[in-house]
Amino acid sequence: MNLRLALAQLNPTVGAIGANLQQLKDAYHSAEQAQCSIIAFGELSITGYPPEDLLLKPRFIADQRAALLEFAASTTSCVAVVGVVDSDGERLFNAAAVCADGRVQHIYRKRSLPNYSVFDEKRYFTPGTEPLQLIGVNGIPVGISICEDIWVDDGPHVDLVASGAEILVSINGSPYHLDKDAEREALIADRASQLGIPICYVNQVGGQDELVFDGGSFVVDHSGELLGRAPLFTESLLITDVEIQHRESRVEPSISLGGNAAPIHADNPVLPIAESMSGDDELYEALVLGTRDYCRKNGFSDVVIGLSGGIDSTLVACVAVDALGADHVHGVAMPSRYSSDHSLTDAEALANNLGVDMRTISIEPAFAAYMEMLDPSFAGRQPGLTWENVQSRCRGQILMALSNEFGWMVLTTGNKSEAAVGYFTIYGDSVGGYAVIKDLLKLKVYDLCRLVNERAGKEVIPNNVIVKPPSAELRPDQRDDQSLPPYEVLDPILSLYVEHDRTAQDIIDAGHDPEMVSRITRLVDIAEYKRRQSPPGVRVTQKAFGKDRRVPITNGYR
Amino acid sequence: MNLRLALAQLNPTVGAIGANLQQLKDAYHSAEQAQCSIIAFGELSITGYPPEDLLLKPRFIADQRAALLEFAASTTSCVAVVGVVDSDGERLFNAAAVCADGRVQHIYRKRSLPNYSVFDEKRYFTPGTEPLQLIGVNGIPVGISICEDIWVDDGPHVDLVASGAEILVSINGSPYHLDKDAEREALIADRASQLGIPICYVNQVGGQDELVFDGGSFVVDHSGELLGRAPLFTESLLITDVEIQHRESRVEPSISLGGNAAPIHADNPVLPIAESMSGDDELYEALVLGTRDYCRKNGFSDVVIGLSGGIDSTLVACVAVDALGADHVHGVAMPSRYSSDHSLTDAEALANNLGVDMRTISIEPAFAAYMEMLDPSFAGRQPGLTWENVQSRCRGQILMALSNEFGWMVLTTGNKSEAAVGYFTIYGDSVGGYAVIKDLLKLKVYDLCRLVNERAGKEVIPNNVIVKPPSAELRPDQRDDQSLPPYEVLDPILSLYVEHDRTAQDIIDAGHDPEMVSRITRLVDIAEYKRRQSPPGVRVTQKAFGKDRRVPITNGYR
Repeated sequence: MNLRLALAQLNPTVGAIGANLQQLKDAYHSAEQAQCSIIAFGELSITGYPPEDLLLKPRFIADQRAALLEFAASTTSCVAVVGVVDSDGERLFNAAAVCADGRVQHIYRKRSLPNYSVFDEKRYFTPGTEPLQLIGVNGIPVGISICEDIWVDDGPHVDLVASGAEILVSINGSPYHLDKDAEREALIADRASQLGIPICYVNQVGGQDELVFDGGSFVVDHSGELLGRAPLFTESLLITDVEIQHRESRVEPSISLGGNAAPIHADNPVLPIAESMSGDDELYEALVLGTRDYCRKNGFSDVVIGLSGGIDSTLVACVAVDALGADHVHGVAMPSRYSSDHSLTDAEALANNLGVDMRTISIEPAFAAYMEMLDPSFAGRQPGLTWENVQSRCRGQILMALSNEFGWMVLTTGNKSEAAVGYFTIYGDSVGGYAVIKDLLKLKVYDLCRLVNERAGKEVIPNNVIVKPPSAELRPDQRDDQSLPPYEVLDPILSLYVEHDRTAQDIIDAGHDPEMVSRITRLVDIAEYKRRQSPPGVRVTQKAFGKDRRVPITNGYR
Repeated sequence: MNLRLALAQLNPTVGAIGANLQQLKDAYHSAEQAQCSIIAFGELSITGYPPEDLLLKPRFIADQRAALLEFAASTTSCVAVVGVVDSDGERLFNAAAVCADGRVQHIYRKRSLPNYSVFDEKRYFTPGTEPLQLIGVNGIPVGISICEDIWVDDGPHVDLVASGAEILVSINGSPYHLDKDAEREALIADRASQLGIPICYVNQVGGQDELVFDGGSFVVDHSGELLGRAPLFTESLLITDVEIQHRESRVEPSISLGGNAAPIHADNPVLPIAESMSGDDELYEALVLGTRDYCRKNGFSDVVIGLSGGIDSTLVACVAVDALGADHVHGVAMPSRYSSDHSLTDAEALANNLGVDMRTISIEPAFAAYMEMLDPSFAGRQPGLTWENVQSRCRGQILMALSNEFGWMVLTTGNKSEAAVGYFTIYGDSVGGYAVIKDLLKLKVYDLCRLVNERAGKEVIPNNVIVKPPSAELRPDQRDDQSLPPYEVLDPILSLYVEHDRTAQDIIDAGHDPEMVSRITRLVDIAEYKRRQSPPGVRVTQKAFGKDRRVPITNGYR
């Protein structure tokens, strides 16, 4: 027997209950028209995921509940599985509401609540403990679970199948990090073949502050073979016909729904399997979607970027153009007395290649003014780093003034290596609303720049930008490697210390230079106060700076 | 029978395992000399509380374990109850180690893990489930619990007493908010009288990033009457003699320790009951301790403050002087073309009264430079708010340059009302390392200024500062009430929306003006991105901006 199902890979906005509800209704209508028997939506699809402390407002919960009831009232025989917040008046549950025939027919409460990494579900929710139930859809027993549930070896899928489920529906709010999509598909395929039943996995898509949801919803059959896959990083209604193998002793589910058992038409709306992505392609698309959604969902059409001719601002400009269109990206070159010629010509060449508006504003008048204003205080001193920081902050000032006056969001251009060691000026180059490449180590920035040119089949990014030694150009002949080790040495140490929770001693024990490791890890620790005041940006690794890494600023551990 | 016990109200630094260990040893030595039978330390007293993601580093756990073993090895017959991280190799536990006679004799694992408000204990710890044990100290059965445990009605204290405990020791890492000390004493007194046994409650003291621990350790007898109390906001070793009433059927504890059963000497080291505090006095001391410890623990001796002659920077300067001493506080007045005469004279009078160094740096040269630099971009426009922001950022630049050159930390002067509605300039008046009054609504700022003068018995704060209408002075004749409602109207709405999780509709339903509420709550929502880049500061309410209020920036809920 075949079951036609739809996976609604939608892009909700957290908190926008009305708009999210409309998305649900529209997708439901499409699934109905395609004669689907089931449609599954993402985790917390009415509130968007993660709603964070909005969940602490009782009226928010009530508003969401009203939206659920409105949606349920609009359902017919196609069975909808909707991620919702459920409440017993005191406690909240992360739940799946089964809606059909005009009402909510069943609620499943998530059992495994992730509370690590970027997840805080135990802050809000109580785990479900109710007996599991199967939902009969056209007579087929369907089991439901939510996100983390299926990652747990003895999760509810085990009991659901033991009690007669012939297909599992897993609804998810699973944020992206590099290669996460492949990880999910491997796990679910493994579960399906071990349990011997098909599994459909639906995920939300879109950017929400630091998180990007990559979508990539899919269906595997009872042997774990892929039957359908929605494209990554875009909304999609994935419709798949799944053949259900009756299990030896078919169980009659206590809840029996569905009347869409009519033979499925020949004009099959089932989509082909979308191509997967990997590595740098995936990373780049995550940056684009994260940036686009942060701007769009916060009401910004245009962005402004300080173009230094360096590798970081160059990559950010490319991402911005792909996210918003060249007409919505504004570049500003802000030379100083220490800027090299190539920094301006490289920035101009890039702007020209990308087709973005660019202006040049020298920071010299402001820099000179500050030197004059501070002269009485600094008399007799030879300020070094202070003047470097002043220059960087003059640039931040210019960008923010343009932002204030024209409503352009400033995109911050710092990378993860700089953020880690504090090689940036607070209120200077770190200003902005969104930090596009904050979670890319410097070497990865180079990789993605090369990717941009490869994909374009031409030199969008001037080759000089890629080959010249990196410099902040805040004093004569400055180069990054005067203050920092080469990125080939630095990045692996940072990855161990920041992303893998190793200590300085661990890294030394692994064979890295002791003096270097001590210096670098100390730099990371003392830069925490600066990172804490940095803008959010796309998370693409398993541990980004931000809510993912909650270290104390005041920290005596060495 | 009497039991002499010591409560070690210490001020650890998170992560500083070696220094914290030394504190433990020193206090233990004092307790030994005073012939105490028990000494109790705070929760996680070797790591400091809260260690946050340091707990994810396996070597940190190992280092802490080594420190515990070193401490235990140094113990004699006086029984020490020490807050530690316990590990079973896979999972971590928030635990109390009972140390005596040279080794760890018992480990109790905390059962109730708070995961709300500023607490994230479920991110790190697994709750204990082992059978409870009593510790025999000089034959007296002692029960142990940790912080949240005792707040839960059916917490371990119930079973401990049922199984024969004759005194309870509760070790805590309980952060301050207004009147929290009174709340704790009332709860514990209630528990003691209900259970009919004495309870000793030990808390850590000191500032840790946004949190201030107020100490206020105390002992109540079996009727809930106060036997001893350590002073608030300072380190103390509270020694108290507690009379133990034998319970009808005395139980023989499985663990039997202690040899300090000698009669207690007449030269009694027992301290008098320290005075409690309340209201504004308490708030003020919390600000002082939070500021002092943030500076001290992060290696700053001196601070710099922009003195505008307004009420906010005035209060911050007073707190700073009390925290660090007048010699370590530097004021800067930064007048512009829009500054009134009184802003400079009021700032000068304050600096003079406080005895702090003050300089004046006009921002005019930099402001004029930016106007010139931006003229081509702004041609034909009449920038209003943009020029206001530019002025504020010129001031931020000056403060940061002084900070960079002289190593003075910038203290940020914004209050909670401004932070809430976004009435500040990002990278302007919000720059700094620590935001002293970030959790005080504006009306409370006035209260504390009046308190300063009351306490001093003279006009430390010029009366004009308190009576003049607040203004940002960024355009001619500007006043806060041109942009915002009077603070008497604003603050109560903010308290409901921010501190009490009411929605706009809830507040309208409570009788506030609908248009005003819609406007104010919308301002709060859209300022989230600015607050996210603001410095940390002392938390003194039950909900401060910061880790306490985790709302999405991208947020469609109205």
